Amino acid sequence: MTNPRFDVAGIGNAIVDVLTQTDDAFLEREGLAKGAMTLVDEAQAAAVYDKAGPAMECSGGSAANTIAVMARLGAKCAFMGKVKDDAFGRIFGHDIRSLGVHFDTAAAADGPATANCLVLVTPDAQRTMLTYLGASIHLKPADVDLGVIKDARVTYLEGYLWDPEDAKQAFRTAAAAARDAGREVALSLSDPFCVDRHRADFLDLIEGHVDILFANEAEILSLYQVDDFDAAVDKVKGHCKIAALTRSEKGSVVVSGDNVTAVAATPVDKVIDTTGAGDAYAAGFLYGYTRDEDLAACARMGGIAAAEVIAQIGARPETDIKAAMTLKLRD
Amino acid sequence: MTNPRFDVAGIGNAIVDVLTQTDDAFLEREGLAKGAMTLVDEAQAAAVYDKAGPAMECSGGSAANTIAVMARLGAKCAFMGKVKDDAFGRIFGHDIRSLGVHFDTAAAADGPATANCLVLVTPDAQRTMLTYLGASIHLKPADVDLGVIKDARVTYLEGYLWDPEDAKQAFRTAAAAARDAGREVALSLSDPFCVDRHRADFLDLIEGHVDILFANEAEILSLYQVDDFDAAVDKVKGHCKIAALTRSEKGSVVVSGDNVTAVAATPVDKVIDTTGAGDAYAAGFLYGYTRDEDLAACARMGGIAAAEVIAQIGARPETDIKAAMTLKLRD
Repeated sequence: MTNPRFDVAGIGNAIVDVLTQTDDAFLEREGLAKGAMTLVDEAQAAAVYDKAGPAMECSGGSAANTIAVMARLGAKCAFMGKVKDDAFGRIFGHDIRSLGVHFDTAAAADGPATANCLVLVTPDAQRTMLTYLGASIHLKPADVDLGVIKDARVTYLEGYLWDPEDAKQAFRTAAAAARDAGREVALSLSDPFCVDRHRADFLDLIEGHVDILFANEAEILSLYQVDDFDAAVDKVKGHCKIAALTRSEKGSVVVSGDNVTAVAATPVDKVIDTTGAGDAYAAGFLYGYTRDEDLAACARMGGIAAAEVIAQIGARPETDIKAAMTLKLRD
Repeated sequence: MTNPRFDVAGIGNAIVDVLTQTDDAFLEREGLAKGAMTLVDEAQAAAVYDKAGPAMECSGGSAANTIAVMARLGAKCAFMGKVKDDAFGRIFGHDIRSLGVHFDTAAAADGPATANCLVLVTPDAQRTMLTYLGASIHLKPADVDLGVIKDARVTYLEGYLWDPEDAKQAFRTAAAAARDAGREVALSLSDPFCVDRHRADFLDLIEGHVDILFANEAEILSLYQVDDFDAAVDKVKGHCKIAALTRSEKGSVVVSGDNVTAVAATPVDKVIDTTGAGDAYAAGFLYGYTRDEDLAACARMGGIAAAEVIAQIGARPETDIKAAMTLKLRD
């Protein structure tokens, strides 16, 4: 097989984040489930935004964040996701292209606005998210660039794609094309509520369609409906080639066949905002993986990338993450 | 006179900032004057944005930043400025209102987009700005809420209002209404190039129309076309009630009649981004002033507010500036 043009092709909901600092009392008054991602319509999103504090806007989206961090690390990446040709859509396209990422999914000329996610960050660095899917629901199988998928070592898909109906079909199209081309498929479970909405589909996907699974502890427990992490590890064994399971300050555990490798978390001085921690972990891991590092090294690189992102506001590092990676791998 | 409803009413260009990190080589390639604010049209702004790195968006505008910081400190404030009813216009309105600021300038239904400013931050924390004035050029005298001006202890105007023709007339209307009501008028000179564009008008304004003048060293040197700070101090004496002159790490100097008070700068661990330093100084100063603090205390409060803002990215503090002010005033 020729050397692929891309290390990773990501597909996900193309979202602009609206980040604001808040407190627990606000979440309670608004009846919001802390730490969760809730899907809302435009009016619900506006109602909470109107009551929230001053915000800043930056590109987001789970798989898009992963691709952005990988690009910062120096990987060759592509992204597919649907925006509208509006102010937020232009921001999204600019931000991802300016990192050198190949992004040419056609923007919708009409219909709903570019997706946005109101990210409410509490003083304990937890984030509670309200997502208006907007234009991202129009990502269709025809938007999947099969040439790019075939030319990417790994196709990376986010579980959130399972929420919009058309995007789910796009997901299936991309995963099948990648496998047919002899490439690998990675899936992030996105969040425990997303897992709960699509459990049967996700279990089916992992059985034979996915090579690399990313999940945090809550997600993998939800997937297998167990209460105990070790029980979840037993369940995932043999169902996909590699499962990389993140456990916040407890680090991560990589399951591959019968091998279980635990790697400690990278220390962080002060956790500011956990938005994008899982996305960054997947980026660091896949960066190592596509450079043929062993799984323990991949897990360590995932942890270093996550540590960079949670020490700042927002899901995409402002810092020189490549330099940080080089430095910390030396320790 | 009854107790005014507002401590300060600000009038300025209503702008959303697009912040991105860059380097000196980029500025050179684009032929941009480092540290300056350059007015550009939509196409010029887009051409540079397309080549710039990933960005984040947040509300800006010089006087609006001052009002936002004052509101964070606990002052009662109003703001007037023109946006369009578009995505950036809604962001601007949300951010300022969510701080408790009275803002009800009617948004333009059509015409140019909400103003934006591409802020290019270099590793030395300096910012170079490209401003597309957009809808802000349509701020007219009729947009000045005379009831608010009469009910504000100080009306605060930015020099940048002198760039759009209609806004200049709005400036004159507001300043006259404030003086007629027995209130005070404050002016920020904005930047040395703005001073150069409007020197004669600014000299005339300071002579009898302005009570409190804010300027940094480069601006006051430009205003009086002198090379020496002490010469500028001599020139400004007696031309307005108070001149608060900022000198970056050298602190600030307040001139009032024949009295000249120098106050040291507040130490900062690491300067990240100087965007909004002058705006924040004016906020801290006016916060003290409208609480009847003496001029040395006002200057100190200005310095503390500026120190908070330059230790982070963007012109509006994410930190609890009120707590920082209380803490540092104790030192």
